[in-house]
Amino acid sequence: MHLQVSSYFSLTLQSQRNNHEILVRHYKMLHDVAEQICVIEDTHRIYEDYKSGLTSIEETDMPQYKAPLRDMHFVLHELLNAEEHYAKLPAFQETVSRELIDQYLEAGADFCENELSPLNQIGDREGCKWDDGVVTTPTGFKAAYDKYVELGFPSLSVPEEHGGQGLPGSLATAISEMVGSANWAWGMYPGLSHGAVRTIEHHGSAEQKATYLPKLVSGEWTGTMCLTESHAGSDLGIIRSKAEPQADGSYAISGEKIFISAGEHDMAENIVHIVLARLPGAPKGTKGISLFIVPKFNVNADGSIADRNGVRCGSIEHKMGIHGNATCVINFDNAKGFLIGPENKGLHCMFTFMNTARIGTAVQGLTASESSFQGALAYAKDRLAMRSLSGPKSPEKEADPIIVHPAVRNMLMTQKAFAEGGRALVYFLSQYADIVEQGVTEEDRKFADNILSLLTPIAKAFLTETGSESAKHGVQVFGGHGFISEHGMEQIVRDTRISCLYEGTTEIQALDLLGRKVLGTQGAMLKDFTKIIHKFAEANKDNADLKEFVEPLAALNKEWGDLTMQIGMKAMQNPDEVGAAAVDYLYFSGYVTLAFLWARMALVAQQKLAEGSTETGFYNAKIKTARFYFKKILPRVRSHVDVIAGGLDPLMSLDAEDFAF
Amino acid sequence: MHLQVSSYFSLTLQSQRNNHEILVRHYKMLHDVAEQICVIEDTHRIYEDYKSGLTSIEETDMPQYKAPLRDMHFVLHELLNAEEHYAKLPAFQETVSRELIDQYLEAGADFCENELSPLNQIGDREGCKWDDGVVTTPTGFKAAYDKYVELGFPSLSVPEEHGGQGLPGSLATAISEMVGSANWAWGMYPGLSHGAVRTIEHHGSAEQKATYLPKLVSGEWTGTMCLTESHAGSDLGIIRSKAEPQADGSYAISGEKIFISAGEHDMAENIVHIVLARLPGAPKGTKGISLFIVPKFNVNADGSIADRNGVRCGSIEHKMGIHGNATCVINFDNAKGFLIGPENKGLHCMFTFMNTARIGTAVQGLTASESSFQGALAYAKDRLAMRSLSGPKSPEKEADPIIVHPAVRNMLMTQKAFAEGGRALVYFLSQYADIVEQGVTEEDRKFADNILSLLTPIAKAFLTETGSESAKHGVQVFGGHGFISEHGMEQIVRDTRISCLYEGTTEIQALDLLGRKVLGTQGAMLKDFTKIIHKFAEANKDNADLKEFVEPLAALNKEWGDLTMQIGMKAMQNPDEVGAAAVDYLYFSGYVTLAFLWARMALVAQQKLAEGSTETGFYNAKIKTARFYFKKILPRVRSHVDVIAGGLDPLMSLDAEDFAF
Repeated sequence: MHLQVSSYFSLTLQSQRNNHEILVRHYKMLHDVAEQICVIEDTHRIYEDYKSGLTSIEETDMPQYKAPLRDMHFVLHELLNAEEHYAKLPAFQETVSRELIDQYLEAGADFCENELSPLNQIGDREGCKWDDGVVTTPTGFKAAYDKYVELGFPSLSVPEEHGGQGLPGSLATAISEMVGSANWAWGMYPGLSHGAVRTIEHHGSAEQKATYLPKLVSGEWTGTMCLTESHAGSDLGIIRSKAEPQADGSYAISGEKIFISAGEHDMAENIVHIVLARLPGAPKGTKGISLFIVPKFNVNADGSIADRNGVRCGSIEHKMGIHGNATCVINFDNAKGFLIGPENKGLHCMFTFMNTARIGTAVQGLTASESSFQGALAYAKDRLAMRSLSGPKSPEKEADPIIVHPAVRNMLMTQKAFAEGGRALVYFLSQYADIVEQGVTEEDRKFADNILSLLTPIAKAFLTETGSESAKHGVQVFGGHGFISEHGMEQIVRDTRISCLYEGTTEIQALDLLGRKVLGTQGAMLKDFTKIIHKFAEANKDNADLKEFVEPLAALNKEWGDLTMQIGMKAMQNPDEVGAAAVDYLYFSGYVTLAFLWARMALVAQQKLAEGSTETGFYNAKIKTARFYFKKILPRVRSHVDVIAGGLDPLMSLDAEDFAF
Repeated sequence: MHLQVSSYFSLTLQSQRNNHEILVRHYKMLHDVAEQICVIEDTHRIYEDYKSGLTSIEETDMPQYKAPLRDMHFVLHELLNAEEHYAKLPAFQETVSRELIDQYLEAGADFCENELSPLNQIGDREGCKWDDGVVTTPTGFKAAYDKYVELGFPSLSVPEEHGGQGLPGSLATAISEMVGSANWAWGMYPGLSHGAVRTIEHHGSAEQKATYLPKLVSGEWTGTMCLTESHAGSDLGIIRSKAEPQADGSYAISGEKIFISAGEHDMAENIVHIVLARLPGAPKGTKGISLFIVPKFNVNADGSIADRNGVRCGSIEHKMGIHGNATCVINFDNAKGFLIGPENKGLHCMFTFMNTARIGTAVQGLTASESSFQGALAYAKDRLAMRSLSGPKSPEKEADPIIVHPAVRNMLMTQKAFAEGGRALVYFLSQYADIVEQGVTEEDRKFADNILSLLTPIAKAFLTETGSESAKHGVQVFGGHGFISEHGMEQIVRDTRISCLYEGTTEIQALDLLGRKVLGTQGAMLKDFTKIIHKFAEANKDNADLKEFVEPLAALNKEWGDLTMQIGMKAMQNPDEVGAAAVDYLYFSGYVTLAFLWARMALVAQQKLAEGSTETGFYNAKIKTARFYFKKILPRVRSHVDVIAGGLDPLMSLDAEDFAF
């Protein structure tokens, strides 16, 4: 027993951080000690009680997630005519019906509401535990993952030739919204596999596909994307990880990667890392980076697991949120890797999927708006405080429910407008992504790619920033209770903050939009989209009921072009003017893009009401939310225009040394 | 030993939440067990190692706080002419010199930089521990408090007749800025005593003063304000705690209070609670609430500690931030209390100090701007990523420091403008607070009280919201690293969020401003302040170098009045229009108020440069930051004006039942 206790001590001293796990082991240890020394009879029962109590500590007060299926149907079927959209794409026209779509949504909703949502606070509270390179995910995470795999979700949108179900990416996006709203930290484990799957699918050799795809697609293995190094985040051109060619055609990969989400965990048998590294003598900068497959466990010719590769999780980060997801330092120490795609074209290969990865992050913004809206709405109907300024609304109660107060309404309506508008934008984009992949003509694919490329940085940055705003409103509606963990609102603020940082910060998205996409194409990409808005406005200019939306939209659409010209002129004199205008330009673009979608949603609702729909509450809410958006949110563009007019000089004139004394 | 281990188990099961403390006890317990059964010899050493390692886990990377003394001197002496101000107030005219002020600031800076700042992350990481009603504060907190008391800080601004040093409240405010920037959670322990001291000072009987003030003033005891109940936060009219008169003239206080900051801790010998409760048969609502002194330990006639009173900390909250401060549920169970002030006038007595308490919270916003600015600035000068769009700025390095990028500049300048502007606003207000207390004529006191009453909700809400914005920028400047705890930036976001909630949420402040202060006085209070701005603008209208500030300021000052008229007209038709406009009106007011102070600061800087000051870097930075504020921040008012014009209807037209389907 001496030995056992001693080694136990040294073990726990190594992993002091992981208090919770240590506690469990502590109790177990005490139990073992006690059993051996025969002084305590009931420690086993106490230990079992304690263990079973772990997940029930502080029962959650947070309303559990309810999938907004009615609104998802509205966006998919009524706004975006999903069936018609799929009918135009040969890959889906015979397989994808409305019935099938709705069945998948039902199955997703059931899984997310009942399996994932209950684990959301547990994941935040427990976090992941690191112990000597081994990462343990929170209670219940692995079981939920097993069920997710069993239900076939990982293979949903993978082509049948690679063992997938061959369904559209846009359907997978709708499922991912529910997964993310219920439990974003959990959703990142399967989510990160997508990038690895798509990279191998598009750039891997036949052998690489045969070796890795089946198990990645089924979900038996997961994947990661290993880009960032501690000194190199937004600037991947300066990464230092190395790949040395070996006699057998493989490469020895060495270097340290950080911020690797789902980089190590206990959910799957193997983890396939896609790693950026430099070959010997590679050119400096972004043109000297290659891409490698580096599995955690090497793989035998028959696809079975072989010996452990030189890949180790050095530690996991303590961070603001998404505690349930392991953010890993991954050390590669002469790990066996395999070149994927051409030498020195690694960034190019990796960026093939940048748009879809960024839309995936835009979804996180939408989920923050949706889940904080659900929580705040329930609370605002229930919580009593003060009387309405226009007279008591619930005189039988000791105070009115706070939803009667205009300031509370304003926050709820803002969340609602961003959640439903964000859903429309994300689903709208995911249809273009379908066309990029499966469109019949080159022209269709090219046009869709232009729209997608233009709107992706907008969706990513604008929806994540507005998601953060919504989350803040959620806390604020709860008042002081919003600051308390058990209500779940502050967790949304913490979890969603990362969405404005990873996959390119808001500032990076803004530069991508204004510099590369808009000015870099001399406005051509922007024109493709403003033409769509223009056509919509023209087609509806005589609709008196839609005038309140169409007129300001048409004016802003024109202003978008003018503003772009203005900035372009300034940028010719000083390229830094682009950087000075970019973030405000992105917000302007986001508000106008959402205005377009809200105007379209109002039109659909009008039409449904005119057709005599009995769902008058639902459709009137759409029109009223559109009105709220145009009257109370859209005016924000004015400040952004004025700030852009302020130009570069007020930002740059101060010498870096004179910022503080 | 059987008994010992069993009771130990039951003890730890009761307090499962406080993992860290349990761990320490666990080790101690294992040590005791081991010692008794004589099988492990070195557990004691291991336990000691572990305990000493607790505070060194994850050494901080965060730049430690540096008190911005140069800027504090600028605001106090150059902008606000502190000496002149004090010379007009008999209480201070002979005692307070510039030399004395600066000595106090130096002493405060030394204490905050060296004692409090190093405890800031420790407090966040360890949090407070609750065990059966006893609260243990984080490592080092008590020692720092002892030193603070020893240095005499608690008594700084208390009149000499009550054992204080009789120095101005405005000086104490400057010290509190440094305390709060270094470690807000810690600062709340002595901070909460102020309210108790002032309440007893102004409303207590001679006996109550003699009994409680000496030890509260010296800091030997601390105080709290017990207002909130779980169902009653913003709406104190519905509190339920009861006070039953007793034969000896005391009252038996019963009820549960929540969110009691510093409600229980291990720093001081006694805690004096100031409690809102209802007398039997008291009128309903706010007019039936009385105020009581309820000490944790009863006090003997000689001032020494007697038996424990019926006051118990039922639990502490798990919350988003300020982990180092204990947010307590306090249960009063027939606790002995003493009426303070007249029966049923409790809210009135408590609200006497609402302005100063709210300015105290405004300080928290300023501290978030200051500390996130300090962190972000250091990082932005150091971190290398990408090249400036206008060509390499540090060609010898592998990339440029990110401070060259306009988007990063924009965030830093925003933080700087809010930190320095916020400092000016808070110190400006604290001088009016001095006059309210010590002004010579009734007219002076009344005028100062008007300005203070008008600007307090603005300072509270605007500075805390802009503080939150600054904190967000701090995270964003750090990129993905901002999300990681060790850098300290995300802690500021979490810690400062509470400032928008407690002491009245932003929405409550907005109603107080627009409803009570502005419209409630038919615009009289607002006019007092806009006249000050008008005079400043008139006096400087011929100063060509100041035109860029004075012209827009004068225009906005006029617009402030017009906007108020507009809202007032609408409000006559529907009082809910006040609620609909209030938050945007508050932001408008905040931006204009800060513009006034930035214009004044620019003028001072101009004058100093004209006088031939050699500190050209410092004064030019002031002018450039003012320019940044006017060009890049102030345009935000345009959106608020447009949103106000959108009115009430878009907020209220949606039926509460139709928010979600």
